[in-house]
Amino acid sequence: MTNSEIKHISSLKNKKARSEAGEFVVESEKLVVEAIESGFEVKLVCYTSDDVDRRIASHPAAIAVDRKTMDRISLLSSPSPALAVVSMPASVADEEVGGLATNPGTLCLALDGVRDPGNLGTIIRIADWFGIDAVIASPDTVELYNPKTIQSTMGSVFRKKVVYCDLADAARQFSQAGAAVYGTFLEGDNIYSQKLDRHALIVMGSESFGIRDYLHSSVTKKLFIPPYPAGGSGCESLNVSAAAAIVCSEFRRNY
Amino acid sequence: MTNSEIKHISSLKNKKARSEAGEFVVESEKLVVEAIESGFEVKLVCYTSDDVDRRIASHPAAIAVDRKTMDRISLLSSPSPALAVVSMPASVADEEVGGLATNPGTLCLALDGVRDPGNLGTIIRIADWFGIDAVIASPDTVELYNPKTIQSTMGSVFRKKVVYCDLADAARQFSQAGAAVYGTFLEGDNIYSQKLDRHALIVMGSESFGIRDYLHSSVTKKLFIPPYPAGGSGCESLNVSAAAAIVCSEFRRNY
Repeated sequence: MTNSEIKHISSLKNKKARSEAGEFVVESEKLVVEAIESGFEVKLVCYTSDDVDRRIASHPAAIAVDRKTMDRISLLSSPSPALAVVSMPASVADEEVGGLATNPGTLCLALDGVRDPGNLGTIIRIADWFGIDAVIASPDTVELYNPKTIQSTMGSVFRKKVVYCDLADAARQFSQAGAAVYGTFLEGDNIYSQKLDRHALIVMGSESFGIRDYLHSSVTKKLFIPPYPAGGSGCESLNVSAAAAIVCSEFRRNY
Repeated sequence: MTNSEIKHISSLKNKKARSEAGEFVVESEKLVVEAIESGFEVKLVCYTSDDVDRRIASHPAAIAVDRKTMDRISLLSSPSPALAVVSMPASVADEEVGGLATNPGTLCLALDGVRDPGNLGTIIRIADWFGIDAVIASPDTVELYNPKTIQSTMGSVFRKKVVYCDLADAARQFSQAGAAVYGTFLEGDNIYSQKLDRHALIVMGSESFGIRDYLHSSVTKKLFIPPYPAGGSGCESLNVSAAAAIVCSEFRRNY
């Protein structure tokens, strides 16, 4: 592996370099195998140990590297035995949101400005577990290909559609198609006692601002996850990924 | 503020220094106010701006510092306008676990080797929201006073009891007191259709190993959060904090 290749891979920890190259990095044996088995184009696979999964070592773009090289290219504080450079797929066109909205079986999550890459990745994994059709993210939501996002999806990034677009537009398309637009609010109705529509968009707010004002009129049904005991303990809210987990669980519980 | 004070505060990013000093750091206006209003002893409060919450500026141990100083003492990549040094409370004695176990109203979470500080903090926040009586952590669970844990509790660390002890012992005490010991397993029963006992210990496994073998015989009832559609999509599991959120929600939903 040449020095310039090493530099290129290390540079992918920066958003600008990722965007220019159209590439991102996944690390760990599990995620590299998931990348290889997905429909994504895997440009390069590096591994340090001969006893990695055979799908890694036998990949046409695989090269064995020593630990020192892995330490240089890895974005993790404790490098794993495998790393892959993967091409970003073409981003999903806005029109696809319309296609999602009009399908009466569609349940999507919308994220209004989620900033923490770990939260975004965890939410994509939750969406994958619960068969949510797509995650629709406002343009200021943290970048999908941030290494922390990618790692915390645990491979769900290769299965789950993530679309960045204007959420007011997306909500309008769902509403016009006859779908419900849900959102979590402190003054919402107890989620446990609602009949939840399966054709819906569920808006989750950001860590700091919740669902922002510009979206309030788009939400047709406000939901609330009640604390226990009623009235709560002083804890003001749940983390957005914890709330997303509960909300998705509630939408899927009765089906 | 002297150089040696600055050095002392910065040193608290290391576990050894925290443990020797018996002190930890909280940052952000919200968390500093929560620390001040809690029963914890606040040793020092630093703030950079005159328009911080008046409870911060008026604290007897408060000092105004310039931004440069805050940059030096802060453990965050983007320092906030307030930071406090807080004394660790005396750790909870093992006997207290017995006291918790024998109270028929007690519902506790047990964490078997959770390694990620953000997950631990998020789970403490979930426990706070859902009125879980205590979080019982195996001795190899990540440290409570890790700055990332503290920040992700969002203040719940000041309200929620966290006990580090042997989980097999804790489970035995709950069982002997007539409580159920639940755990999440891939081969468990659908959590949505179970009658969940309110007097219980709920064991959650770690990110990498789930619930380890030494605890399997302690679990009297195995639970499973079903994916959607049944059979799943290829996603192997939920993040431990997402699973904890759903499990706590299910235990509290019907009460």
